Amino acid sequence: MSTADLVELVAALPDGAVLTDPDLTEGYRQDWAADPNAGHPMAVVRATCTEDVQAVMRWATEHRVPVVPRGAGSGLSGGSTAVSGGIVLTTERMREISVDPVTRIAVAQPGLFNAEVKKAAAEHGLWYPPDPSSFEICSIGGNAATNAGGLCCVKYGVTTDYILGMQVVLADGTAVRLGGPRLKDVAGLSLTKLFVGSEGTLGVITELTLRLIPAQPPASTVVASFGSVQDAADAVLAISRNLRPAMLEFMDHASINAVEDSVHMGLDRNARALLLAQSDAPGAVAAEEIAAMVAACEKHGATEVFATDDPAEGEAFTVARRSVFPAVQALGSLLLEDVGVPMDALPRLITGVEDIARDCDVLICVVAHAGDGNTHPLIVFDPTNPDEADRAQRAFGLVMDLAIALGGTITGEHGVGRLKRDWLPFQLGEDVMELNRRIKTALDPDGILNPGAMLK
Amino acid sequence: MSTADLVELVAALPDGAVLTDPDLTEGYRQDWAADPNAGHPMAVVRATCTEDVQAVMRWATEHRVPVVPRGAGSGLSGGSTAVSGGIVLTTERMREISVDPVTRIAVAQPGLFNAEVKKAAAEHGLWYPPDPSSFEICSIGGNAATNAGGLCCVKYGVTTDYILGMQVVLADGTAVRLGGPRLKDVAGLSLTKLFVGSEGTLGVITELTLRLIPAQPPASTVVASFGSVQDAADAVLAISRNLRPAMLEFMDHASINAVEDSVHMGLDRNARALLLAQSDAPGAVAAEEIAAMVAACEKHGATEVFATDDPAEGEAFTVARRSVFPAVQALGSLLLEDVGVPMDALPRLITGVEDIARDCDVLICVVAHAGDGNTHPLIVFDPTNPDEADRAQRAFGLVMDLAIALGGTITGEHGVGRLKRDWLPFQLGEDVMELNRRIKTALDPDGILNPGAMLK
Repeated sequence: MSTADLVELVAALPDGAVLTDPDLTEGYRQDWAADPNAGHPMAVVRATCTEDVQAVMRWATEHRVPVVPRGAGSGLSGGSTAVSGGIVLTTERMREISVDPVTRIAVAQPGLFNAEVKKAAAEHGLWYPPDPSSFEICSIGGNAATNAGGLCCVKYGVTTDYILGMQVVLADGTAVRLGGPRLKDVAGLSLTKLFVGSEGTLGVITELTLRLIPAQPPASTVVASFGSVQDAADAVLAISRNLRPAMLEFMDHASINAVEDSVHMGLDRNARALLLAQSDAPGAVAAEEIAAMVAACEKHGATEVFATDDPAEGEAFTVARRSVFPAVQALGSLLLEDVGVPMDALPRLITGVEDIARDCDVLICVVAHAGDGNTHPLIVFDPTNPDEADRAQRAFGLVMDLAIALGGTITGEHGVGRLKRDWLPFQLGEDVMELNRRIKTALDPDGILNPGAMLK
Repeated sequence: MSTADLVELVAALPDGAVLTDPDLTEGYRQDWAADPNAGHPMAVVRATCTEDVQAVMRWATEHRVPVVPRGAGSGLSGGSTAVSGGIVLTTERMREISVDPVTRIAVAQPGLFNAEVKKAAAEHGLWYPPDPSSFEICSIGGNAATNAGGLCCVKYGVTTDYILGMQVVLADGTAVRLGGPRLKDVAGLSLTKLFVGSEGTLGVITELTLRLIPAQPPASTVVASFGSVQDAADAVLAISRNLRPAMLEFMDHASINAVEDSVHMGLDRNARALLLAQSDAPGAVAAEEIAAMVAACEKHGATEVFATDDPAEGEAFTVARRSVFPAVQALGSLLLEDVGVPMDALPRLITGVEDIARDCDVLICVVAHAGDGNTHPLIVFDPTNPDEADRAQRAFGLVMDLAIALGGTITGEHGVGRLKRDWLPFQLGEDVMELNRRIKTALDPDGILNPGAMLK
């Protein structure tokens, strides 16, 4: 790649779109996975529109240059880690949105934060449900690229359930529209769904057509402490068997204490597990659901149960739950897991992680979207202690091995990225890996789209 | 293809699995689309298990024989129309199901009827929502292959929203498991979602892992008559803007009268349009939602509004709605449309269809899943009258052209099959068609899986 070639790219894009100054590109080398092996990109392109993205992909195809698509850079699996000699293509400047309240549809550019999509919908009395804990700082484009989840997904589903269509730029720079503002549409293969969760390996999403639903009533909340993980897990199954809670979150002993250290909510520091559940059922039904959840917790040995219909009080507990990640981060460097299992394997996963923590002699704090079996064991280590860092890495692999052994997944909502790529074949098996590769090759024959992410 | 080759296939399968007697194979040449140009298959294979399907696909790959997968044969777009010299591979004998009430998951073989899946779920107090009007006679495998919809989808989503995983046999006979009993799983490309709605062109589904939800309360019902289509459509938009009805169906004047001729419900034969809406909200909330729907209908000029919280009475109206297809069938041969549009274009679609009926001088009865913009104009003609049959065919194309012009789809829930294949490029455009073909070729390089369905 010569400087002259890069000049071509600069000429094809608006002024200031291409950054090459290392002081400026440095901030685009890593995402929140903070991969120490992140590459040094040749340039960062801040696209302003679909045409900019097309120009980048045409140029990249011509010169066989790898392109790493990037939203807000809040990814947790290294899906946006820069590749040396490649382009980081960020959509952070593509931030327009329009909401049609009659058809309940939003058309959003990828650089908007999830919270901004929610806000635009709320101005029309509507709601965009998916809510990653990072919703204030993660982009809707990244949400689509990873098929992001969140807390309310236990009742309302994940990102793919709200994406009706998209504009996507393919490897060769062709821009196509998939799906559209139609609530039912089965014309042709389900390409919209294929691109959701493809982690930038098949194309670059430049616009999303999102389904919105009417705003739901404010939620009522239950907080329950348990003397054992098994009791809490049993309560989760009892609740989800008969109800559709709007949230059903789990925190283990270590997470509870990390949060208490940080935000002082008055949580029971001696509890082995805590459940946080909500009902957003309308009218008097919320009280019935809350009563049923309280009864399920009490029946399964909860040591303390607190319920409130005050939305502000409930939100404070939700904020506490969301603060686990920064609270635990204060304890050291983190390796973030995102493993999920069939619901009935949840207790075995959580107790198995406890065993791994003990065997590897590292602290692992577990928070979980318990209602859908998706857990986030957070492995804490001191990066200046090479032995502990090694043990943390070993635990990282063992947790994924355990999830796979329990019939689970190595990633419920964060994506495979680069951090978990080596474990993917163990979950999927060689035949399914081959299917993945066939589709990747069919759509990106030169392998320039996010090489090294998800697939080797 | 020699007789000796077919003997190989017979030897690889259980006794009685392979039918070649024309008297027996005749019933497998057409689906409900009743394509008069259906081919004459070399044989029909009634698979009993995944291994049977693998044996067929291995043999078919070796001999380059086309295979048309078939569920219950109730498809409406010719997706299972036999190909001359090919194999019809029916899964009608694969009928096992297991339901796990703790994890709320069913594992079902493809030959079960949708109604049987619902029944198995109901035995555990659970519900499988998607409900094509043909739910008593359509197979769950066919539902997955077409991403089938139905009446409750306006609130509860379509088939793809309930499929967590599947076993699928690929063109070369390899059986793979995609997804699984995990409520969140983003490991690898979204292959499960890609196979849903692929109409047997990418593989043969031999097992489905289905998400179930707790049974919902019995529904309350509103039936409203209108003096104009526009009024009814306005009421639909007013309702769906603020509520999530569990059903929101539309019938036009011709459909109302066809149903009255057939089942005598006491519907207003002079009405230009009828809406049938339900709320299954819990407790007192249902009454609030019903009151809001009644108010919306009255505000938008309903000439008569009837509401009931008697589930049996409501179900009678639902049965009437479901009876439109057989009732209209009594009037002549049918060409069934399945066009959908963005919600705000619904009035223009319905009035446009009226114009087409007048211009082509044919009867078109319109029923619609109005709440998600998916309509079924039923074009009635006398097949012994060549001129009328021609005019019906012309109307069939014009309705799809209109839907496309309104930003809509040629198929909301039935699939493209063979009947609508020639219109698909007009909806998708050449670039998206090319994407479809690249994936088809990557997964079925010899083109033996359902050739002629969806893609040319």
